Order: sequence, then structure tokens, then C-alpha cells
Amino acid sequence: MSQPPGSASGTFVRRVPEGDNRERLVCDDCGFIHYENPKVVVGSVCSWEDRILLCRRAINPRKGFWTLPAGYLELHETTADGALREAWEEARAKIEIEGVLAVYTITRLSQVQVIYRAHLSSPDVSAGPESAEVGLFRWDEIPWPEIAFPSVRWALSHYREAIERGEFSTRSNPAGEFGDY
Amino acid sequence: MSQPPGSASGTFVRRVPEGDNRERLVCDDCGFIHYENPKVVVGSVCSWEDRILLCRRAINPRKGFWTLPAGYLELHETTADGALREAWEEARAKIEIEGVLAVYTITRLSQVQVIYRAHLSSPDVSAGPESAEVGLFRWDEIPWPEIAFPSVRWALSHYREAIERGEFSTRSNPAGEFGDY
Repeated sequence: MSQPPGSASGTFVRRVPEGDNRERLVCDDCGFIHYENPKVVVGSVCSWEDRILLCRRAINPRKGFWTLPAGYLELHETTADGALREAWEEARAKIEIEGVLAVYTITRLSQVQVIYRAHLSSPDVSAGPESAEVGLFRWDEIPWPEIAFPSVRWALSHYREAIERGEFSTRSNPAGEFGDY
Repeated sequence: MSQPPGSASGTFVRRVPEGDNRERLVCDDCGFIHYENPKVVVGSVCSWEDRILLCRRAINPRKGFWTLPAGYLELHETTADGALREAWEEARAKIEIEGVLAVYTITRLSQVQVIYRAHLSSPDVSAGPESAEVGLFRWDEIPWPEIAFPSVRWALSHYREAIERGEFSTRSNPAGEFGDY
């Protein structure tokens, strides 16, 4: 879809286009279909020795709570490059990616999250513009009540499980935890 | 972004919004930002005994060439459910997902592909509306010169590698193969 919105001059209505089986936003005038798509979030669980990088959010949603370095994938960017970029933007962290830890879908938000396992190239980290502070936490130091999102808890738990089991197949949404989100 | 295009009344221009670091499509009139995002494709390599399911495309692009059952993820759908849906829509196949085979990014198309390992619940498959025919192929029967897209070749090769090695960590883009696409 290279046509920018606004070039369709009419009013958009929701209807099922011919040959489709779902309602779409269709321009009543010219028939231009504006497909609405899920968004991709990329991020990582980054370790330094036995500690994990977390960032305290300086912005909403969930300002003041702790999260993993993660954010929306940009156009023409690989998911791995996006994870590297977010680690730099949010924590001034240089990281090396080890593999895909998990692929989560947050259906409520139509969001697909690709979360990597990674390690820091050095423990020198500092808050980027969207972080109030950053820190390296041992497992028993993680501020669980102040974690920003359920998927951050999933990723931290899946990371620990993978390390303990030495079994690095890619995880997906834990059962029954959708309701938490 | 719940606001449909067309509700911003003015002309969209490309500029860097305040606090951002990239050009976006911004309404000159009201400042509404239309974020352009990568799209998610979901699909699977589905096996029945030592054979793999392929679909010959009845539509463009690459009409007449063979592909895996795959397509765009819909809103509010998990990536796994999307892969099940595509297997049904394109090959009337009922499948059981085993794990994430690969996450590929086609940067040229800003497309993230989540490809699963799966097996068929039965060998009863038939062409859906977007397929001219479907078939179950042994490795040495795969019509390599008639494969629709490089990422289909990647997924087939990664599937075989994973099976042979008994090592199911999630694969990503092979080096140096971007140019093929």
C-alpha cells in the first residue's frame, strides 16, 4: 500500500470488499481499501553475567514502571536490527543477539512481539530519552510489582526457564495469561 | 491508531514530527500522524510423514509457482491462529503446530514472516480459492525451479536442516540471500 491516506477523497466505510471475507475500511468514492494490520514490536532480554537489563519508563503508558528495551519495528528494518536499535535508544546498550526467545501476540492490541535473547557487550548502560533510569538486576532483585506489562513478565520467566533447562526453542504466549494484559 | 484515514482533512506531507527522529506522513492541516508499519506474514511448513505441503498459486504475484500456505496476519489474531487459518484457506489442511521454525524479515517489502513447523492432522488436502492445486512432496520431488519466493526456499531448507540435526532453535534470514528476493 504505497498510496497515502487522504489521496482517497471520499468517506471511508466498513464493508466486505468483493472476493474478501472480512470488513475493511473502503473509500466510498474510489474503492481504495485501507488495510489495517497488526503492528510488530521488537525487543530483547539482555544479560550481563547473571544480571538482566531493565528500563524504568519515562513515558506513558505505564510511566514509572520497569520494562525491557522494546518498541515498534520501523519500515525496512530487520527484527534483529530493531531490537539492537531499541536497546541503544532506551538504555544506551550495545548488545549481541543470541536467538529468538519468544514470539507473543497481544490480540487485544493486535501486536506481535518478537523478543530476542541477547547479552550486553559491556555493562555501560544509561537512560535514553524514553527511560527514567536503567538497571542491571539479578533474578531476586527484579521489581516484580513494578513491571510495566504482562509480556515483560512472560519474557523474563521464559528467559530464566530457557537458561535453566538449556533449551532455547522459541516460546509463545503462556496459556491463560491473556486476561492479565 | 483508531482514526481512519480521510478523517484528517488536509494534505499529507512527509516530515519529522516533534520528538521523533524519522519522517512520517503528517496531515498538514491537523497534525494527525499516519504511522506506516511493517506487515506480518504467517505461515507454516506442514509435513505428512516424509512429505511437505505446497500450494501452486492461482493469483499474482508469482501465479503458477509453488509456495507454502502463508498470508497476512489479521487484526486480533495470534500468529499461530493465522498460520492455521492460512493452511485451511489455501490448502483445506488441518494442521498441528510444533514450534516457530523461522522469523524472516523481507526489508525491501517491510515484511516480517513468522513461519511455523507443523504437521498435517490428515493427508486430505485440496486447493482453496487462492491455489490452483496443492500437493505433498518428498524432498527430492520439490519443484525448486518453480518455487514462488526465496523465503519459501529458506523455510524449506531450514526445515530440513532442523529435522536432520534434531535442533529446533528458530532460524532467521540466511546471510547473503537478501539479494535473491
